[in-house]
Amino acid sequence: MFQNKMPRFEILSEDAMAVLDKGWRRIVSEMGVEFMHDGALELFRQAGQKVEGNLVKFDPEFILAQVAKAPSEFDVQARNPKNNVHIGGDSMVFVGNYGSPFVRDLDVRRTATFDDYKNLVKLAQSFPLMDSAGHTICEPDDLSLDSRHIDMTYALQTMTDKFYMGNVISGPNAADVIKMSEILFGGREAIEKTPATVSLINCNSPLRWDDRMLDAMFEYSAANQAVILTPFIMMGAMSPVTIPAALVQQIAEALSGLALVQLIRPGAPVIFGSFMSNVDMQSGSPQFGTPESAMGQLCTGQIARHFNLPFRSGGGLNASQTVDAQAGYEAYTTMMATFLSGTNYVLHAAGWLEGGLVASFEKFVMDNEILGQLQTQFTPLNVTEESLAFDSHIEAGHGGHFLGTMHTLENFRTAFYRPFLSSSDNFDRWTRNGSKTTDVRASEIAHKMIDEFEATALDDAIKAELDEWVAKRKKELDA
Amino acid sequence: MFQNKMPRFEILSEDAMAVLDKGWRRIVSEMGVEFMHDGALELFRQAGQKVEGNLVKFDPEFILAQVAKAPSEFDVQARNPKNNVHIGGDSMVFVGNYGSPFVRDLDVRRTATFDDYKNLVKLAQSFPLMDSAGHTICEPDDLSLDSRHIDMTYALQTMTDKFYMGNVISGPNAADVIKMSEILFGGREAIEKTPATVSLINCNSPLRWDDRMLDAMFEYSAANQAVILTPFIMMGAMSPVTIPAALVQQIAEALSGLALVQLIRPGAPVIFGSFMSNVDMQSGSPQFGTPESAMGQLCTGQIARHFNLPFRSGGGLNASQTVDAQAGYEAYTTMMATFLSGTNYVLHAAGWLEGGLVASFEKFVMDNEILGQLQTQFTPLNVTEESLAFDSHIEAGHGGHFLGTMHTLENFRTAFYRPFLSSSDNFDRWTRNGSKTTDVRASEIAHKMIDEFEATALDDAIKAELDEWVAKRKKELDA
Repeated sequence: MFQNKMPRFEILSEDAMAVLDKGWRRIVSEMGVEFMHDGALELFRQAGQKVEGNLVKFDPEFILAQVAKAPSEFDVQARNPKNNVHIGGDSMVFVGNYGSPFVRDLDVRRTATFDDYKNLVKLAQSFPLMDSAGHTICEPDDLSLDSRHIDMTYALQTMTDKFYMGNVISGPNAADVIKMSEILFGGREAIEKTPATVSLINCNSPLRWDDRMLDAMFEYSAANQAVILTPFIMMGAMSPVTIPAALVQQIAEALSGLALVQLIRPGAPVIFGSFMSNVDMQSGSPQFGTPESAMGQLCTGQIARHFNLPFRSGGGLNASQTVDAQAGYEAYTTMMATFLSGTNYVLHAAGWLEGGLVASFEKFVMDNEILGQLQTQFTPLNVTEESLAFDSHIEAGHGGHFLGTMHTLENFRTAFYRPFLSSSDNFDRWTRNGSKTTDVRASEIAHKMIDEFEATALDDAIKAELDEWVAKRKKELDA
Repeated sequence: MFQNKMPRFEILSEDAMAVLDKGWRRIVSEMGVEFMHDGALELFRQAGQKVEGNLVKFDPEFILAQVAKAPSEFDVQARNPKNNVHIGGDSMVFVGNYGSPFVRDLDVRRTATFDDYKNLVKLAQSFPLMDSAGHTICEPDDLSLDSRHIDMTYALQTMTDKFYMGNVISGPNAADVIKMSEILFGGREAIEKTPATVSLINCNSPLRWDDRMLDAMFEYSAANQAVILTPFIMMGAMSPVTIPAALVQQIAEALSGLALVQLIRPGAPVIFGSFMSNVDMQSGSPQFGTPESAMGQLCTGQIARHFNLPFRSGGGLNASQTVDAQAGYEAYTTMMATFLSGTNYVLHAAGWLEGGLVASFEKFVMDNEILGQLQTQFTPLNVTEESLAFDSHIEAGHGGHFLGTMHTLENFRTAFYRPFLSSSDNFDRWTRNGSKTTDVRASEIAHKMIDEFEATALDDAIKAELDEWVAKRKKELDA
């Protein structure tokens, strides 16, 4: 997996950090945070925090003491141990798109089906830079609402040998995912020792944690499964209309959720989540890949490191309707900030389009090209006397060229990143080949990969046990 | 003009810098640099350097002593003093595309004409973020080869009130541009006091400076006009196939040219130039917006600051054939590195397409959108107690929204960057409006700006003098 050994790009001064620090303390203590969940309120009451109805007013020092119990780094296991990941430090984990009700297949935009879901999962398994397909890579609308979490989890377990994410629609759904993971990894103890899932718990910003998400979180955290506590902030709508105010709110929300996890199970793995962009203040519509969202990512990295926590942000976010130039520069904006900030967990790393409403096959391919480029850009240079290739200069001579020098012949295969989507064909050749724009080429690559996909076989006994449990459980749920 | 007050992103360690330092010294002293110009050779001979035919072998300390004579920052004047620019320090100057023989107007790609040239100049004058149209924003193929430098310079002087670049085809061409600038700015003394032009002097890499470019350089430097000494390096072809080797070669080439300028006129303004990308090692075709080119930019910034010199790099470079997704992410890759490295002089800031063969109207618009976003992203956050907008939180309440709070109403107009090209329209609205992709919307913006263009009037007496001189000189040249 990718290690980001480049410097972090940090833009907050010590003074700025001090202002933000004062800010979140004021929010959690004076305004407090709402938890629409009796179990959560009870835990906070027992821990000596001031509970007024659904509102919890915190002692900031209590929150910091809870946060200190959380691991700063941890592992997540995958079916294929080679695909195990480490979360935190310099590690970056890249996970597929999440939550889109629609798909785009080049010129066709449609409601997502389970076939689409499986095809996107195939892409996530096939691309070597992807660490996980995630969970709801798109929302399969043709499946039963009550049992589709089982179908999705089963697809992730059998079609991929990478780690997967959990379902967060309800507590019982979470319990099902945990049960299926126990079957796959050999029992409860095995997954409690090393988490097998990571689940996305969103805050209903501003300053409210909802009951169903918290139900799911209680299940996962009790089983020592990792959760990402993510404030969902479209600046201007779900937060005040400034970046510093949104950052302070984000800290208050994420840390209050983190504190709850540490009450449920001290030491349970958590990720400081960030999903922060802004709305168009004329139309109110969400924007992505904006300068403000990039700055938010850079600041979030600095803040998460301040609290010694792994963090999630970024991905290939954009608001474009198709995989056009805007999709290209907006996705790159977000992904570049993802690398500059040293993000540990990158959700929506591939496939996101149209503000997240759409999972796009061609965008999935494009995002993997961008990921490949950025992993190269964020791999430190090896600057040695040998790397200067002085002999190659002597061989080429003044005004000469280097294509045929010994040093070039020995190194040309690995010297530079080799794009699989970007084209530098000259105009004649590009025209002869059909004048295909990037989205068209990406679509061809996607469909070829889907057609050629072969799943890694799963152990027969495990598969039989899984099949039996799935059949029984789906029957119960759909009854 | 834009000041980049964000941190610089530096990726070279002290050890790496020491290796590079040793490397360029070895190249200039052991291999030497070729100057295909008797005047240059004579100056170097007089200065005590070892001259063998066209080859000059340098004492590195001599080069450093010459470089120390160059100003680290300087001003360039424009017809409208409000458009004067400062080159060096935190300043970033954004200049149009340069040198393309073709233009693309959405679906039409054609040989560039003087009409195209004037239309692109209109865009450069109209976009507030552009500091200059440059010089050869495209190559007007329908004009006489002998006098088109006069036509271009005249267009730049009369249609724009921003600074402009000089012609570098020959010494006499350079002398013509200087003469025209004397007329515009009130005599030789006025332009010697503060340069009125910046000219691009490319090295014929590896390690050779050609005669015609040097002829032009002699004219400009003698008149205290700024020159950009730019190694032209496609790694793998014009340099060895590693970034460190290319960096060392770039230093040797740029500094040897800089040393010559300081012999011609000590203290004359110079810019350390960088144009560094790589070829596709399978096909040999030039690639742009690559991870290696971005890393080269970051390193170049660090190196130029080490020598206390303003530097040129970056722009909206890409290899794409149309303004599609690849054009979007490649242009952003280069432009982001331009900002991260703190580039002082950004040539090709707008319009570049197809590896520079094409100047594109829609790309010009797109690049200005990216510039606007990046200028926002590189403007430091104002993090104060007031910016946290605590009252807005109280007004919105838990689970509420901020669209109507007092703080939002007071700040929403200026809170976030407002795109003029990117669309966050929802799918229905976007479809109703014709399903226009980014290139189509950009083209509409370009043509509207061109149609509505009005030049800023030039003083009648100056214009009369200029017209008279131009008519006479063109008659001589085309005779």
